[in-house]
Amino acid sequence: MIKIALDAMGGDRAPRMAVEGAAWASRELDCHIVLVGKERNIRKFLVKTDYSKEKISITHAPEVIKMADPAAVSVRRKKDSSISVGIEMLKKKTVDAFISAGNTGAVVCAAALKLKTLPGIERPGIGIVMPTLKKPCIIIDVGANIEATPRQLLQYGIMGLSYSKYILGIKDPIAGLLNIGQEESKGTELVKEARQLFEKSKLNFSGNIEARDVYRGKVDVVVCDGFIGNILLKVTESFAEATSAFLKRELTKRLLPKIGAILSLPAYRAIRKKIDYSEYGGAPLLGVDGRVIIAHGSSNAKAIKNAVRAACEYVKHKLNQHIIEDLEGLNE
Amino acid sequence: MIKIALDAMGGDRAPRMAVEGAAWASRELDCHIVLVGKERNIRKFLVKTDYSKEKISITHAPEVIKMADPAAVSVRRKKDSSISVGIEMLKKKTVDAFISAGNTGAVVCAAALKLKTLPGIERPGIGIVMPTLKKPCIIIDVGANIEATPRQLLQYGIMGLSYSKYILGIKDPIAGLLNIGQEESKGTELVKEARQLFEKSKLNFSGNIEARDVYRGKVDVVVCDGFIGNILLKVTESFAEATSAFLKRELTKRLLPKIGAILSLPAYRAIRKKIDYSEYGGAPLLGVDGRVIIAHGSSNAKAIKNAVRAACEYVKHKLNQHIIEDLEGLNE
Repeated sequence: MIKIALDAMGGDRAPRMAVEGAAWASRELDCHIVLVGKERNIRKFLVKTDYSKEKISITHAPEVIKMADPAAVSVRRKKDSSISVGIEMLKKKTVDAFISAGNTGAVVCAAALKLKTLPGIERPGIGIVMPTLKKPCIIIDVGANIEATPRQLLQYGIMGLSYSKYILGIKDPIAGLLNIGQEESKGTELVKEARQLFEKSKLNFSGNIEARDVYRGKVDVVVCDGFIGNILLKVTESFAEATSAFLKRELTKRLLPKIGAILSLPAYRAIRKKIDYSEYGGAPLLGVDGRVIIAHGSSNAKAIKNAVRAACEYVKHKLNQHIIEDLEGLNE
Repeated sequence: MIKIALDAMGGDRAPRMAVEGAAWASRELDCHIVLVGKERNIRKFLVKTDYSKEKISITHAPEVIKMADPAAVSVRRKKDSSISVGIEMLKKKTVDAFISAGNTGAVVCAAALKLKTLPGIERPGIGIVMPTLKKPCIIIDVGANIEATPRQLLQYGIMGLSYSKYILGIKDPIAGLLNIGQEESKGTELVKEARQLFEKSKLNFSGNIEARDVYRGKVDVVVCDGFIGNILLKVTESFAEATSAFLKRELTKRLLPKIGAILSLPAYRAIRKKIDYSEYGGAPLLGVDGRVIIAHGSSNAKAIKNAVRAACEYVKHKLNQHIIEDLEGLNE
């Protein structure tokens, strides 16, 4: 049975959401979940849930890395934190994957330090799958590495293309570099140099992609540094939230729109499902030698359950092997 | 009467949209519009419109800087382009403001070269007003200067605060630096250094603001470099477009949601109006000694008409005088 370690102490509403999400997953999915964190705390919430006893266990980790703690320092000092212990389990292969909704910087740092990066990959990157008007698209990096080099961007492209091909099942995926214009002359030095590397490579590369084309689904892989990627992701969330709040306000102002809204409810639900990150359940940390899933800090139980599902899918594919082969193919 | 020069050759559908927008403005607004560009071309479209003859005139400019032309080179070479001629008119004070939906880089470059920047301002910045869940907020810079220095970010903060106070009428506006976290330790070197400058200044500064808080209206002025700002803006547009396409698809799939959608039409219109850039009509290029409005490249006639309205409003306020005073106040 697939075995997933889940950081019970990570996320804005830890450990409750992690525990409830794990219980939910134990009822629906065919895998074993190891909750990592303060055992008494975890048990307090676990007894209140309806869970499958054979599918959940606890590994005690007495320390906690908080959301705002400095990443590198905390990983070095808190060796008994849920993040350090979980990554250690992954390293020793007692579990197949590790999920955390906790301090992203600390997870990235612990994973890079202990698991090491794949041969040919300098820095890991977080890839997130977003819906577009066409196929789903992966944006990499959305926050692992905020000051990337051109070569690291190229490596993100390779990993994103492998993910698109082997996990999302997209045939001949195309990568684009996120930029403020399509022309070669546009952009920062970083983007200009990265563009040259992409063009020299044998990758399926469409050149620069403008932000306005991201959700039009013009490419399958959007490559950017973690600073821009994180802002892109968070702005989208912020705008989605604001739009639905505006809409709610307008729809409930008068009677007819209100009735209309009730009749249209299934459509709204379908949209929400499409753009709701809790449906996607976390983003893979690509480029480390081990399967790590970063869940959203404000994950609810459903998001955690879906992250477990995503982790199970991830385990079934030999993505890292493919990435290594794709990298080697490029260097031939 | 207020006199506005309008680049007739700028934008994806030039000169038609500029001419139709000018005609519309001449019927609704109390100002004179000088269409700058190829006279025969302009006249061809103008005769097909219903416009007020006393309120529109043409200044011939035989050259055109195209959307994809390199900015600095084009401005230097094409002295008779609509952009160069329009900015020259502004410099000679034969008009009160200049509007262009053309090559943004060229407009910024021509304005900085000919009009010069205000004392104490090193680089101009484009400020765009966005709706939020609370008050409208100005984001600066969204594309004038893609590699800003910490000092330039501080100057954007000053200009943004003046705009918020004097044009948007917001009492005691607050500025925030766009970053990937609120903590001081987060972000690129640029953002960290800029944060220190903001904190040392007497400005109303709330620290870092995360992208997810932008549309929540947490601050009145969002400060960022032009690369990030441009991506933020375009991603928002792209996501808005995708969401409404998703919604349309879902709403028209079955009968009840379809009826619901029809009943809810006024609410959708209200939302579209709120997030539609053509309602806002362009973004001011702040920091140059003259009033320049950058309109969206894909502006339709309504967007141009609203840009003329925005320019008239802009002329009525002595914003640049306020910016200079606010800058001096800071240095005392």
